[in-house]
Amino acid sequence: MSTHTTSATVPSYVLDQWWTPAEGSRTAEVRDANTGEAMLRFGAEGLDLGEVLAHARTIGQRELGALSLHERALKLKELAMFLNSRRDELYALSHRTGATQVDNMVDIDGGIGVLFTYSSKGRRELPNANVIQDGGVEPLSKDGSFIGTHIYTRIPGAAVQVNAFNFPVWGMLEKFAPAFIAGVPTIVKPATPTGYVTEAAVRIMIESGILPPGSLQLISGSARGLLDVMDYRDLLAFTGSASTAQSLKAHPNVVTGGVRFTAETDSLNAAILGPDAVEGTPEFDAFVKAVVTEMTVKAGQKCTAIRRTIVPEGQREAVAKAVSERLDSRVVLGDPRAEGVTMGALASLDQLRDVRGAVEELLAAGGELAYGTLDAPSVRTASGEEAVVEQGAFMSPVLLTWADGDAEALHSREAFGPVTSLLGYTDVADAVRLAARGSGSLVATVCTNDPEVARELTTGIAGHHGRVHLLNRETSRSSTGHGSPMPQLVHGGPGRAGGGEELGGIRAVLHHMQRTALQGSPNLVTAVTGVWQTGADRRIAGSPAYGAEAGQEHPFRKSLTDLRIGDALASDLRQVTQEDITAFAHTTGDTFYAHTDPEAAAANPFFPGTVAHGYLLVAWAAGLFVEPAPGPVLANYGLENLRFVTPVAAGDSIRITLTAKRITPRVTDEYGEVAWDALIHNQDDEIVATYDVLTLVEKEDTLYRDWTD
Amino acid sequence: MSTHTTSATVPSYVLDQWWTPAEGSRTAEVRDANTGEAMLRFGAEGLDLGEVLAHARTIGQRELGALSLHERALKLKELAMFLNSRRDELYALSHRTGATQVDNMVDIDGGIGVLFTYSSKGRRELPNANVIQDGGVEPLSKDGSFIGTHIYTRIPGAAVQVNAFNFPVWGMLEKFAPAFIAGVPTIVKPATPTGYVTEAAVRIMIESGILPPGSLQLISGSARGLLDVMDYRDLLAFTGSASTAQSLKAHPNVVTGGVRFTAETDSLNAAILGPDAVEGTPEFDAFVKAVVTEMTVKAGQKCTAIRRTIVPEGQREAVAKAVSERLDSRVVLGDPRAEGVTMGALASLDQLRDVRGAVEELLAAGGELAYGTLDAPSVRTASGEEAVVEQGAFMSPVLLTWADGDAEALHSREAFGPVTSLLGYTDVADAVRLAARGSGSLVATVCTNDPEVARELTTGIAGHHGRVHLLNRETSRSSTGHGSPMPQLVHGGPGRAGGGEELGGIRAVLHHMQRTALQGSPNLVTAVTGVWQTGADRRIAGSPAYGAEAGQEHPFRKSLTDLRIGDALASDLRQVTQEDITAFAHTTGDTFYAHTDPEAAAANPFFPGTVAHGYLLVAWAAGLFVEPAPGPVLANYGLENLRFVTPVAAGDSIRITLTAKRITPRVTDEYGEVAWDALIHNQDDEIVATYDVLTLVEKEDTLYRDWTD
Repeated sequence: MSTHTTSATVPSYVLDQWWTPAEGSRTAEVRDANTGEAMLRFGAEGLDLGEVLAHARTIGQRELGALSLHERALKLKELAMFLNSRRDELYALSHRTGATQVDNMVDIDGGIGVLFTYSSKGRRELPNANVIQDGGVEPLSKDGSFIGTHIYTRIPGAAVQVNAFNFPVWGMLEKFAPAFIAGVPTIVKPATPTGYVTEAAVRIMIESGILPPGSLQLISGSARGLLDVMDYRDLLAFTGSASTAQSLKAHPNVVTGGVRFTAETDSLNAAILGPDAVEGTPEFDAFVKAVVTEMTVKAGQKCTAIRRTIVPEGQREAVAKAVSERLDSRVVLGDPRAEGVTMGALASLDQLRDVRGAVEELLAAGGELAYGTLDAPSVRTASGEEAVVEQGAFMSPVLLTWADGDAEALHSREAFGPVTSLLGYTDVADAVRLAARGSGSLVATVCTNDPEVARELTTGIAGHHGRVHLLNRETSRSSTGHGSPMPQLVHGGPGRAGGGEELGGIRAVLHHMQRTALQGSPNLVTAVTGVWQTGADRRIAGSPAYGAEAGQEHPFRKSLTDLRIGDALASDLRQVTQEDITAFAHTTGDTFYAHTDPEAAAANPFFPGTVAHGYLLVAWAAGLFVEPAPGPVLANYGLENLRFVTPVAAGDSIRITLTAKRITPRVTDEYGEVAWDALIHNQDDEIVATYDVLTLVEKEDTLYRDWTD
Repeated sequence: MSTHTTSATVPSYVLDQWWTPAEGSRTAEVRDANTGEAMLRFGAEGLDLGEVLAHARTIGQRELGALSLHERALKLKELAMFLNSRRDELYALSHRTGATQVDNMVDIDGGIGVLFTYSSKGRRELPNANVIQDGGVEPLSKDGSFIGTHIYTRIPGAAVQVNAFNFPVWGMLEKFAPAFIAGVPTIVKPATPTGYVTEAAVRIMIESGILPPGSLQLISGSARGLLDVMDYRDLLAFTGSASTAQSLKAHPNVVTGGVRFTAETDSLNAAILGPDAVEGTPEFDAFVKAVVTEMTVKAGQKCTAIRRTIVPEGQREAVAKAVSERLDSRVVLGDPRAEGVTMGALASLDQLRDVRGAVEELLAAGGELAYGTLDAPSVRTASGEEAVVEQGAFMSPVLLTWADGDAEALHSREAFGPVTSLLGYTDVADAVRLAARGSGSLVATVCTNDPEVARELTTGIAGHHGRVHLLNRETSRSSTGHGSPMPQLVHGGPGRAGGGEELGGIRAVLHHMQRTALQGSPNLVTAVTGVWQTGADRRIAGSPAYGAEAGQEHPFRKSLTDLRIGDALASDLRQVTQEDITAFAHTTGDTFYAHTDPEAAAANPFFPGTVAHGYLLVAWAAGLFVEPAPGPVLANYGLENLRFVTPVAAGDSIRITLTAKRITPRVTDEYGEVAWDALIHNQDDEIVATYDVLTLVEKEDTLYRDWTD
């Protein structure tokens, strides 16, 4: 801390403008991790955090709420493309944090990849609306007049995101993307040591002009006090040390104020070598490679890195040897701007001090140094020379091996750097027990080619882990790695890992929303969900015998613009004869006895005698509802939830009612999806089958206008 | 508190035996709510809570883990039936808490109903296993060798359940049921004033002999100190006051120890009368009825009761009048054992004091007394006389009306008794604003017959609420009511309501489990999930041209006992001609132009020219995989996730590969469900369609043994 400096102060972005503290404000200095050179200053003294929060809750909520889930998702893709075009700027800056180009790919390209994944999933898996129906409908009265379901709507506040220093870009984007799709404004607070890379990324995002006002604010400097003004409408998502997480979690506004709080903290993750995966197997080699990768990528500064390497006791020596050899042959420590460097500096001299201190504690607790040193290593400088750089935060990889795998420190003291501990187990149950001693972890690797070992280890440790990475010969090349959270899969873990859950595709979007049970009549539940519910009003075309009103148009004649949920078609009855069933059996080849052999069919507990094929019923039903001439309905691309309820015997008749249930116009195409509720009845008005027909329908009836006009 | 007493001490049930504190231990006395008569004492001094927790974590986890999800679910049904046969005992005891027979139906029958619902849902919606796959598969490598998905496994500790005094049976069972299905042992701590009813229910459950050892323990008395020994493996589920919830949430083992914590606290729930629902409409009448019901059921001692009755300002007087009239005509206050009594005592004199104090504060803050009194009311005693019972905890219903609907106390001070506040709003946005001033609530009723008002009010308040109950003329008779949480729907709410979520069907089971991301090869992911994953090994029967091995039996010939996931059938190719397509069009009536008109079909963006019907493809596919003769496969009862990927033109050929994907033997029937992965390819090995075929398969091939032997 100092009030006098010549280096520039990194600005914040608040209230839709850039902001820098007044001259003479308190600021903190940040240095180049490789050289120790003073770079920039951080400070937010004088920033009105209540105003920042209010801006998110008002302008941010309003502007994001004016867009649909799909519209916001599409903006993430545009943003990803814009960031991609400018990533070289970020690479250059990021090297100064000690990040190699491989590290940059993880952080910068990885972060942009999260935007692409969320953009795509948001549009494929969510409705193009702002209310998401969750799960099915629960009948709550016998007459069907009172039903229940669930909806998700966004939380009515802000998402405050406090990030760790190790992934200044990915860390920001992986929290921002789901909040943005949900429609919740973000206030991001990066860690100071690498916050200038976050600031550069935010600057590009703002320059893109893609973001709605109030949807993203950045606090470069201390955000102390922000939690004092947050309440139950807001979400605080934290990544960083367990001790900071705990002090935030104990804040009165979390304990009594109802602020939604989620934490992802570093944990003592394990990698377990299966009893089958002995030296000489492909699994052994893949395991050693994974351990070395996790020690060296980001110089081991990853919440997910392998801290505990758990192997059959008889393999401990072989693993130590193989890991050491690979470290020797693969790792070139130095300034990431130098040619050939594969491992950079730690983020700061403070970090270096912390990691060395932790290793000293581990040595005192029984760990033996099997590889590496605590002395300042000779490294490759930016100019390509080998030298000891006193002001660079460089540290050699360190492998500790433990005769006593039960030593307490081994399972509780983390060295947040290129350090792993190697310990032995006696049998699979012992391996499970040792892995669980981490008291909750983000991830474990289970390395085995034995399915039963995989099952036993995984189900044994899953309750203690947020992710389990199975590694064997089939995935040694294709695995995305022990340490890499994927946007499709949840990231987080119980206990020591913070108890939070991030990512996991749409799951993270939903974490920014409130799930609300909804009860009411089908008509009112339809009005709220935007999805037609069984029993709600319809406008029926087709057969007057089954509810059609005069003047109603066949719903397949309506384009997406004209179609409304509840637009329906009711067909007349069509009789099914044994000749029809027999002919269908012979044409299709489906001569199952239930369709062809009266005696055998009658012996079946579910059939009265021979019955029509289920596929005959749905095929005929299509014949009853289809409009043969070209129109806005382009294709039937699938079918969901088909259940055959009542068998149809020869002589029975069927009819179909088809109702527009869910309409999803695409934001990028001239058409969209329509799901139709399909209901087949028999001549006695019993339900024969229920399903959803999935179609693609044009927004405007342009393609076939010529044909129909 | 006293150490000398003649009344009996209610025992605890721990370590699979009944336990009573030693003579002279500290105990608390409980009195009959209606008469003030001393009844029983509660105390747990000397109980080793660490031992109780350890018993759950070891014996309880082991014994529950030996059963599958379905086996545990079935036990809940058996338990429900047993409790049903003994409920008269519970009714009689429960009257002494001030509960009327209507209140007993809510608490005792309602609690038993939760067991039935969970038993049924557990078996219908979960696999018959102990690992639940969550969501679909995420491809993580281009070659399909590395995939990701999610699994749920139970948490490895205990579920400690702290309940409120108002629902001694329902409160216990609604938390116990989902924990039990998940396989997590319960330690229940009821509230002292009505804990003797819980003890009686637990006694019946133990006497049933249905519960596995260690699966249920009861602490009758203080459980202070239990949280001191809990850790991240355990779950603490609390229902009660916000202040107790907060002190638990601030405990170091929650803040830093990772204990999973969920709270459901009483909140200032609103009922909103829509602008359309003026006096004279059916909605107005339904609204008044709901308000009176919520004031009087359980004497208003419900977390979900309506505390804020929000109506158009112009309707405030009319509502006050109608509510008062209905209270006059419908409410008979007294001892629930007396004939005709419709509203009982509060649970204790302490409660009475609290509620009177709260009403006095509300009066001081601007509320005007529109109905009721704070004086001791005259009530109907057990013998049928009208009298003031000094030691009975009786209170008159109280309606407060507010000229200033923005008064702070109105939205923050709860009177946990037969009390509601009536306030006016100007327009729908104002009603939303006022409802949100509760700072997070369990439930709100929205009473309107206007779909747009329903949509606007509900989406406006949903982010602040755990449940929204839509009330209109269609549901005035069939609604399950504003105040009744249903086991199918979530119960809980943000902010003041505690931020927790209970019930909601299977959602609550999953709250007792850890979600873990799983990555690996299809073979290993199959081994862990128990579900066959695309790309995993198969044993293929059928066509040698498509992978069949010699000697493999058609999987439809295998009973459930013999069938394994990965058992598969590969068919040969069958060609589709234009004649086939035309014939299918004419037979089914599906003469959509894409099948019949080459020129129109070619103009469609998705088709190369005329194509086969999707239903032709799935019908023919069945013809290619079916085994015509009787066998263990009894029926195809449905189909899921059908997607048509590549169109099939005349001259193309198709083949099917069918693989046993998920096997679910029923615990109560001689058959079970088998889901088959179905994959249709064309002659160029392109994927034509993907879906799941759902069948019922016999456990033993008995039914048709005669036919096939």
